[in-house]
Amino acid sequence: MPINPQILLDNRPTAEATLGNFKLVTLETPPLQDGQVLVRHHFLSLDPYMRGRMNDAKNYTAPQPLGRVMGGGTVGEVVESRSPLFSPGELVVGMGGWQTYSVVDAAIPGALRKVDTRHVPLPYYLGAVGMPGVTAWYGLLKIIEPLPGQTLVVSAATGAVGSAFAALAKTRGCRVVGIAGGPAKCQYATDELGFDVCIDYKQHADTEALSSALKFACPDGIDGYFENVGGMVLDAVMLQMNAFGRIALCGMIARYEGKPLPMNNPALLLTSRLKMQGFIVTEHLDLWPEALQELTMLVATGKLRPRESVAQGLAAAPDAFLGLLKGKNFGKQLVKLI
Amino acid sequence: MPINPQILLDNRPTAEATLGNFKLVTLETPPLQDGQVLVRHHFLSLDPYMRGRMNDAKNYTAPQPLGRVMGGGTVGEVVESRSPLFSPGELVVGMGGWQTYSVVDAAIPGALRKVDTRHVPLPYYLGAVGMPGVTAWYGLLKIIEPLPGQTLVVSAATGAVGSAFAALAKTRGCRVVGIAGGPAKCQYATDELGFDVCIDYKQHADTEALSSALKFACPDGIDGYFENVGGMVLDAVMLQMNAFGRIALCGMIARYEGKPLPMNNPALLLTSRLKMQGFIVTEHLDLWPEALQELTMLVATGKLRPRESVAQGLAAAPDAFLGLLKGKNFGKQLVKLI
Repeated sequence: MPINPQILLDNRPTAEATLGNFKLVTLETPPLQDGQVLVRHHFLSLDPYMRGRMNDAKNYTAPQPLGRVMGGGTVGEVVESRSPLFSPGELVVGMGGWQTYSVVDAAIPGALRKVDTRHVPLPYYLGAVGMPGVTAWYGLLKIIEPLPGQTLVVSAATGAVGSAFAALAKTRGCRVVGIAGGPAKCQYATDELGFDVCIDYKQHADTEALSSALKFACPDGIDGYFENVGGMVLDAVMLQMNAFGRIALCGMIARYEGKPLPMNNPALLLTSRLKMQGFIVTEHLDLWPEALQELTMLVATGKLRPRESVAQGLAAAPDAFLGLLKGKNFGKQLVKLI
Repeated sequence: MPINPQILLDNRPTAEATLGNFKLVTLETPPLQDGQVLVRHHFLSLDPYMRGRMNDAKNYTAPQPLGRVMGGGTVGEVVESRSPLFSPGELVVGMGGWQTYSVVDAAIPGALRKVDTRHVPLPYYLGAVGMPGVTAWYGLLKIIEPLPGQTLVVSAATGAVGSAFAALAKTRGCRVVGIAGGPAKCQYATDELGFDVCIDYKQHADTEALSSALKFACPDGIDGYFENVGGMVLDAVMLQMNAFGRIALCGMIARYEGKPLPMNNPALLLTSRLKMQGFIVTEHLDLWPEALQELTMLVATGKLRPRESVAQGLAAAPDAFLGLLKGKNFGKQLVKLI
């Protein structure tokens, strides 16, 4: 049986997550049972939601169990199969976790999905044509519901969600303004991702300064906001929202580490008659086919060309993950396992 | 021409509103022009939104101009008419302001509405069968969208909005829990207004204590919340909201006075996948007839019997208004002008 390096959650963070929370171990993969397939992972996806699962707190998913392989999305190749549904050599996306191989019960609906790499590179199925892309699609179409000519803003603009959001919004005739950290990301957002403007939040010391920059970038106000970070950025955007604006909420990176971040002026929800709605994209699986079809088309036609940050080898995953939480990645954060 | 005592906004509050912000003056009403009617007010409505208008700040309505009659809802009788639309002796509801008479251009749509006092007492058109009642109706039906058996919570439970909310929610088969200040209001809420339980927030020193009381009162969690106050109450309710809960936001009394109140844990909007939406009921005039019809029926059949706090005489309006902002009223706050 193949040797399978894997990374476990060894203990929970008390404040910021650290390398010491993780542990690398190596096991043999068990022999396959009937109905199971063995998948050799090519790429592992690192995503902010994983930080939430490291806490033993009320969250939208169960906490990551201690002493078990860290969960996570993977793409790879079937190398052995005792299921009629999959054959060796087929490429699949699944939730294989932070390890080199996974053994999967192939009959569980949604456990593995075959993918086609003729028009879409394999790792894109973890980003633009995967969970982050569908997240952008759902927030844009089901919560923000944009009209042509409206102004939309997204934070973490150059990440997997932000880049898909820009492409989806531009095809609907919207003005799209990004918020990102640092001049390189901002330049990339406008040069490559189609953003009309991108604001470097690191250049703005407080809510008022960031809000002024948003006002300059959004002279007609903000109609929709896709929230990825929380804290000062959310406060600043809320000050510039138009009446009847919509805020889609799918992550608050700033919240995952340490203490809760308040929303300083919730009365704006009333005075501007805003709608703010949180969602988890895995609770809307019925919409994934429609979303993935559009995202595939955007990639195949060159309208969505997301950037990736690729860490090399499973052992590099914890450090890459901690960097992601601090915004050190540039584009979709992956770990190459082959 | 009749003598018309009126109360002006003389200067704006710097923190809490005070009696010194208002000024009582007396003028003659001007002669009527063609198309105008003269209305003698019987009751003036006092409402929390008026506090927001006293500030010179971004709000959902234009600020109350200085040196002008305070705006406000009124019911009264047409005493003179140069319009074919209204005759002397007819009872009408309108926005006559803090004064004894108003001169109204009768052709402006919605400026005056005739009312029928056979089944509904005249002052109810400022409360249960008026703007506050429609506010409760809109928040319940258009934002919370309750299902039978769900648990709903409303703050400021014995006020004009809260009492209508309870009656509307009970007819839809919901469990309705109120939050109010003091044992007398809480007893009234359960004895007379149909609440299943009412929690006295003054008995709970902090968010955690209030949240525990809510958990006890709502063993199946909270599916919908009608928010009237903000601050600690909102924080406590959010901790007990079920997944996919809805929060309708039409007022934040606690916000009107002094500094903004933060929402301490907005990440709950994400982890519980909540929808929170602010609204202003005067922006949805197309729905008023449907809402008023149901509210009239609830009053006529005795299912909605709201309580009123009535101040005597125009000169008492400022003090009654300041009391309303501190929760000293018990039920809908009115000023009797006749």
